[in-house]
Amino acid sequence: MENIVLNVKGMSCNHCVKAVQDSVGALNGVNAVKVDLEAGTVAVEFDGNAVNVGQIKETIEDQGYDVE
Amino acid sequence: MENIVLNVKGMSCNHCVKAVQDSVGALNGVNAVKVDLEAGTVAVEFDGNAVNVGQIKETIEDQGYDVE
Repeated sequence: MENIVLNVKGMSCNHCVKAVQDSVGALNGVNAVKVDLEAGTVAVEFDGNAVNVGQIKETIEDQGYDVE
Repeated sequence: MENIVLNVKGMSCNHCVKAVQDSVGALNGVNAVKVDLEAGTVAVEFDGNAVNVGQIKETIEDQGYDVE
């Protein structure tokens, strides 16, 4: 398992938290997702053999947020 | 039909708009709901014989927002 913490802009409420958690959590190979709304971060635990960071970023961006 | 414009605090993004529109729109007697995110307002067209303003406010508050 690998871990990454992404800085994500535009998450403003608990609906946003849920949108990010559900979409990233649905990716094959993602084991855990934790969004910190106040800090603007998304921590992801994932299997690097099944999914890569680019796919995770793209999934967050598809929900309408900017990944730095 | 009657019309009211409520000032609502805490709506921060399009998820919030949808949550308010869907919940208020589902009330029996509500004909139309329009949320202005920037202005922080919710305009509702409703049949005063079927639903009252108190029920509309309560529905919005149940979604986690403050009606002034």
